[in-house]
Amino acid sequence: MEPDLSTLAEYLETEGFDGYLLDADSADSNQLYLSGFDAPDPFVTVFTGDETRVLVSGLEYGRAKKESRADAVYRLADYDFRQRLAEYGPKEGRARTIAAFLDDAGVESVLAPERFPLGTADGLREQGGDVTAEERDVLGDIRAVKTDEEVDNVRAAQKANEAAMKAAEDLIRAADVDADGILVYEGDPLTSERVQQEIEITLLREGCALDETIVACGEQAADPHDRGSGPLAANESIIIDIFPRSKSTKYHADMTRTFVKGEPSDELREWFDITAEAKDAAFDALEPGATGKDVHDAVCDVYENAGHATFRSDPTTETGFIHSTGHGVGLDVHEGPRLSSDGEELKPGHVVTIEPGLYDPAVGGVRIEDIAVVTEDGYDNFTDYPVELVVD
Amino acid sequence: MEPDLSTLAEYLETEGFDGYLLDADSADSNQLYLSGFDAPDPFVTVFTGDETRVLVSGLEYGRAKKESRADAVYRLADYDFRQRLAEYGPKEGRARTIAAFLDDAGVESVLAPERFPLGTADGLREQGGDVTAEERDVLGDIRAVKTDEEVDNVRAAQKANEAAMKAAEDLIRAADVDADGILVYEGDPLTSERVQQEIEITLLREGCALDETIVACGEQAADPHDRGSGPLAANESIIIDIFPRSKSTKYHADMTRTFVKGEPSDELREWFDITAEAKDAAFDALEPGATGKDVHDAVCDVYENAGHATFRSDPTTETGFIHSTGHGVGLDVHEGPRLSSDGEELKPGHVVTIEPGLYDPAVGGVRIEDIAVVTEDGYDNFTDYPVELVVD
Repeated sequence: MEPDLSTLAEYLETEGFDGYLLDADSADSNQLYLSGFDAPDPFVTVFTGDETRVLVSGLEYGRAKKESRADAVYRLADYDFRQRLAEYGPKEGRARTIAAFLDDAGVESVLAPERFPLGTADGLREQGGDVTAEERDVLGDIRAVKTDEEVDNVRAAQKANEAAMKAAEDLIRAADVDADGILVYEGDPLTSERVQQEIEITLLREGCALDETIVACGEQAADPHDRGSGPLAANESIIIDIFPRSKSTKYHADMTRTFVKGEPSDELREWFDITAEAKDAAFDALEPGATGKDVHDAVCDVYENAGHATFRSDPTTETGFIHSTGHGVGLDVHEGPRLSSDGEELKPGHVVTIEPGLYDPAVGGVRIEDIAVVTEDGYDNFTDYPVELVVD
Repeated sequence: MEPDLSTLAEYLETEGFDGYLLDADSADSNQLYLSGFDAPDPFVTVFTGDETRVLVSGLEYGRAKKESRADAVYRLADYDFRQRLAEYGPKEGRARTIAAFLDDAGVESVLAPERFPLGTADGLREQGGDVTAEERDVLGDIRAVKTDEEVDNVRAAQKANEAAMKAAEDLIRAADVDADGILVYEGDPLTSERVQQEIEITLLREGCALDETIVACGEQAADPHDRGSGPLAANESIIIDIFPRSKSTKYHADMTRTFVKGEPSDELREWFDITAEAKDAAFDALEPGATGKDVHDAVCDVYENAGHATFRSDPTTETGFIHSTGHGVGLDVHEGPRLSSDGEELKPGHVVTIEPGLYDPAVGGVRIEDIAVVTEDGYDNFTDYPVELVVD
């Protein structure tokens, strides 16, 4: 895939920068996207508007020439790195090497990401370079609009995700409930950790890696960032949120379901139904030209009309709908566009989650999350997994 | 565990800074170490010499109060984040919020890591703040010296590592060799990917996560950064390098072995023997008071005396011993101290790898890597895995 960098080229031209500069390893998705090079140690990439150049260590040089999508690959030794290190020390030596690389590319003033390393920026400035942190993440905006190939990468990861969700649900279904209301599987308490392991092994077999998986029950489920631990209980909600990354393509998927083994309370049932309704309302609002804020407002409307607090109605609430409606998914599991109170205009090719939820430690948590792509005339929800609360 | 931050406090005092500032998520190990808080989105931590304060979003506030090791936890709302955003926009609004948080902590001038985000630094500077990127990574130096608890964490991860290496070796042992010299297991070619999967599933079962695993055969093994792919071949070297991370403690281990299924060439045997000898020489040099350079030089001596090129004898060589001897291991799989041409003095509590290796696409690659802790009177190599080339 060759990314379309014309927007970035135009932006540099308009704003009067000679280049866009990255200094990061490929865990930085802008670096992975721009350079096309997957490397564990930081390296430097500059986009001049016409071409992309990378600067790597000797150890990475051969692989970078083979694998990166840069127009030209240079190694530190091409700019006398060792001599400069010996003469000026590590910080200034590295800055002078990068300055020489930029000079060779005809680049004096650079735009850099908000999270560009301060040491490199100040080092280049000391060499007379002009480095500006960007206000908006232009490359992130470009990355947010996926090519068909990128959408297919997310779809493939989502297939793996559905297999993992099914493995988790099957495990909960197969469990018994002991006298204390704890789930028991093959003689042991069924824990969050055991279900996470089942999910993660399934994902590995499906060619995916993973950062973390949420399997959170009861009070834990009421904290959207709690990954969950310990035994799972019957009659309480269990939130399972899985966000795998394809090992080969590096693209993510993301899906959440909420299950109850046994009998949910009336309140949990009501929460589940209103959350499913909120999800439908969000999809009704999802189309090109609408904003992420429109979609988020549709969810807030449903919740607030049903008497639930949201961050829109009360920014300090600790219960109710206490996060945004969704986010883009791609090389990062969280990327643009935002489906939130400051969500921007939606465009065809945006791959987004829709994930309304309700939280209260006294009740538990409910979240339902699908993943979809915005199309020319609406959206394509490519999540293929039932929305059912009770697991018998 | 409470980290001993007295060195950082003294350094701030000596250099005239009011605080040490981080703005990162917990993938940044300095952030995880200083704050003790594991969070997927960036948050701000300041160490004043007397206390550690963190500034998190409302979503993370409850968990940060429970889980972080900070002396005080604040939320963005405590410093009028939303109002500032509305008035000044995202970049300046955030900078003003952090400035208010620092002001409240009595901090005007801060030291920040080399890779501190440029946007935050420039934003604080615009508010009159004084932000300096550090020349040396003081917190990294503190992290390099492990407490007994941290060493135990690495030991535990290494146990998992050994189980995974055994699973991989067993798979290679169980494989047959077909007429083309390709390893075959249960009717299919045995690939790097299949062995990686076996390793990774074993690690998951042992409570470890993982970034990547190297299973590289033949010419692939000659590139130390090639993770390996495709069918494994008999009579060629297979480098297996595993660096798991404990999911619970977040500490890593690291170990490499090189195997040949079948009959290695005389050259591979010789490379293996000299590499084992180089490893022994490195351990002979490993003790407190010696430098990382001393240990690296011991390895270079062995290789160069045997006629092999090293980066010491030829900085541009693409074959021979083309990396450093080792590195620290902890929250990061690569951290201080360095066992390399610029390796610093070694101290008790340093947990390091010793990993000499030889590489040439015409021959393949050989690497043997153990992990050990520097003790008061030498070292404790807690790697418990045989060093044997041939797998029958």
